[in-house]
Amino acid sequence: MAEASSSATYVLVTGGAGFIGSHTVLELLKQGYKVVVVDNLCNSSDIPLRRVEELGGLKDNSIPFHKVDLGDLEGLRGVFRQYKFSSVIHFAALKAVGESVRKPLNYYRNNITGTLNLLDVMIEFDVKNIVFSSSATVYKADPEGKPLREDSPLGCTNPYGRTKLYMESIIRDVTDAEHGWNAIMLRYFNPTGAHVSGRMGEDPKQIPNNLMPYVSQVAVGKLKEVHVFGTDYNTRDGTGVRDYIHVMDLAEAHVAALKRLPDNHGYEVFNLGSGTGQSVLEMIDAMSVACGHKIPYVNDPRRPGDVATVICNPDKAAGELGFKVSRDLKSMCEDLWRWQENNPNGFTQE
Amino acid sequence: MAEASSSATYVLVTGGAGFIGSHTVLELLKQGYKVVVVDNLCNSSDIPLRRVEELGGLKDNSIPFHKVDLGDLEGLRGVFRQYKFSSVIHFAALKAVGESVRKPLNYYRNNITGTLNLLDVMIEFDVKNIVFSSSATVYKADPEGKPLREDSPLGCTNPYGRTKLYMESIIRDVTDAEHGWNAIMLRYFNPTGAHVSGRMGEDPKQIPNNLMPYVSQVAVGKLKEVHVFGTDYNTRDGTGVRDYIHVMDLAEAHVAALKRLPDNHGYEVFNLGSGTGQSVLEMIDAMSVACGHKIPYVNDPRRPGDVATVICNPDKAAGELGFKVSRDLKSMCEDLWRWQENNPNGFTQE
Repeated sequence: MAEASSSATYVLVTGGAGFIGSHTVLELLKQGYKVVVVDNLCNSSDIPLRRVEELGGLKDNSIPFHKVDLGDLEGLRGVFRQYKFSSVIHFAALKAVGESVRKPLNYYRNNITGTLNLLDVMIEFDVKNIVFSSSATVYKADPEGKPLREDSPLGCTNPYGRTKLYMESIIRDVTDAEHGWNAIMLRYFNPTGAHVSGRMGEDPKQIPNNLMPYVSQVAVGKLKEVHVFGTDYNTRDGTGVRDYIHVMDLAEAHVAALKRLPDNHGYEVFNLGSGTGQSVLEMIDAMSVACGHKIPYVNDPRRPGDVATVICNPDKAAGELGFKVSRDLKSMCEDLWRWQENNPNGFTQE
Repeated sequence: MAEASSSATYVLVTGGAGFIGSHTVLELLKQGYKVVVVDNLCNSSDIPLRRVEELGGLKDNSIPFHKVDLGDLEGLRGVFRQYKFSSVIHFAALKAVGESVRKPLNYYRNNITGTLNLLDVMIEFDVKNIVFSSSATVYKADPEGKPLREDSPLGCTNPYGRTKLYMESIIRDVTDAEHGWNAIMLRYFNPTGAHVSGRMGEDPKQIPNNLMPYVSQVAVGKLKEVHVFGTDYNTRDGTGVRDYIHVMDLAEAHVAALKRLPDNHGYEVFNLGSGTGQSVLEMIDAMSVACGHKIPYVNDPRRPGDVATVICNPDKAAGELGFKVSRDLKSMCEDLWRWQENNPNGFTQE
């Protein structure tokens, strides 16, 4: 593997055992970075890190990993005492929308308090570069489905989304208050796909909230049929249109953001998406092609809060971050299917 | 004093030793409520509570007081174990705008984490009624100075304001998630004045941020002259217009809100203001009349972020809470002056 420019320092990845985190860790290693992972494993295990080591040609247990909850300030300090970090990529957060509605205090405490602790410790140890895992959920959906720009109106409809928006604001306030900070907020649209090897992918612990993990579990026979919520939207086939992005494209975007931090742009926000939308039925069709059989679905009423179309305007990321997606719908579905078929029960039960 | 309807239970007042908190405690006692105060005294002392006892005709140290920081979950639990609370009035928060810009993490940690702890303990002890001390700072100022309604657009320009907005949202999410909650957000405009006795009032620890404490410290000779920031606004005399409300009116509004909680309206927001605006020069003039001498001032440039006019639309509070201000500008200034003249150094140095 290539050497990173600053080989003496590490990149801290919080939530590095999660879906997007683990794929990003793999990409970081591939590009020669030294990585330390912190994760409380509340929604994951350390198996993804073993797979990262396998795919990266590393020995087992060679990625420094600390099972620390960001709520544990002293535990976090201990990690910062042990390594010199150049920067932090902050994924660690609870992320289930429905659960956030039922247990809002858990979400605020885990996501907000965890981020406050992380920022306090970063200041204490003079680490002032952060890439933050945000979400397109911070945007108020455009009623006409126009592609969302980084300066489009913000507005969240659930506690999960609010925690993401509030974490962004907190980081912005810190960059305004303290000299020398660089912070990049990455607002993802709809991450899906998996590593091309079929060895790593998304592993939802419960019934998936999002379309593609649900579709792939139907494809592999774990769930009976896909529920299509709303067939009367003002879209080309009546079903909701979203902007899907391959998780390895996302991983590459995080590394691109990390490389931009030393250029001292202060606080910045970038959308990460393809700029094109696929409907629910198009996604089901594409996944059917990938898995080689028809995926059953039923039509259901619209869900409250859903909108017709949410698409990314990716121009700022292209122009300033030099990032464009390079993986298409076909490879998203093929990679997702390879992961799902080879690991029907995810990481934990093989 | 009259008996409260539920004499076996207490009202918990967090931040009850602060400016608005202490005046509200006095009004609660006057109306027969049993009160427990929690305060970390970081911006106050327990002297205001001694004055409340004096004015309420109570023995010294008869108001149950616990020096607990809301960051101390176990300390807070201890208080809830000791008393049966019917409801909570939640004032405890850091409140200096400028300081919040310099130390945002302190503000988020103190205000947000403190509120999360309070709500968690309330749920644990099945206390589901809360009146929350919010602020008109959560509104995006209307560029034309139109009176702000509870459904006017929100938007904050500093971390302090964001903590207030976020605390409102967190409380709303809890009332949505948990059955049986009642929560009233009170958005104050510009509190001033003091108890008519001259024994209690605002006691800023540093150079005052807000106009009226500053004016009164100039009036008493502690500060040299008032700085009038901006004389070219589109207002009747060119200086900024705000909506001032007497702290004892505010105190009465809190008791009115407390009485409304058992009616099970769920989550509600009310503005607290007079509905009329006074300019900076009008306030200086009124205070000059109250103190009997001319108060010196100098004209300075506008401050960034300031707007011409911020006025409350008080109709919702009048119609649904049955609250209207009953004290005019003259009594605000006379009461403020009585406090300032009798206590030139506030509570601590007499």
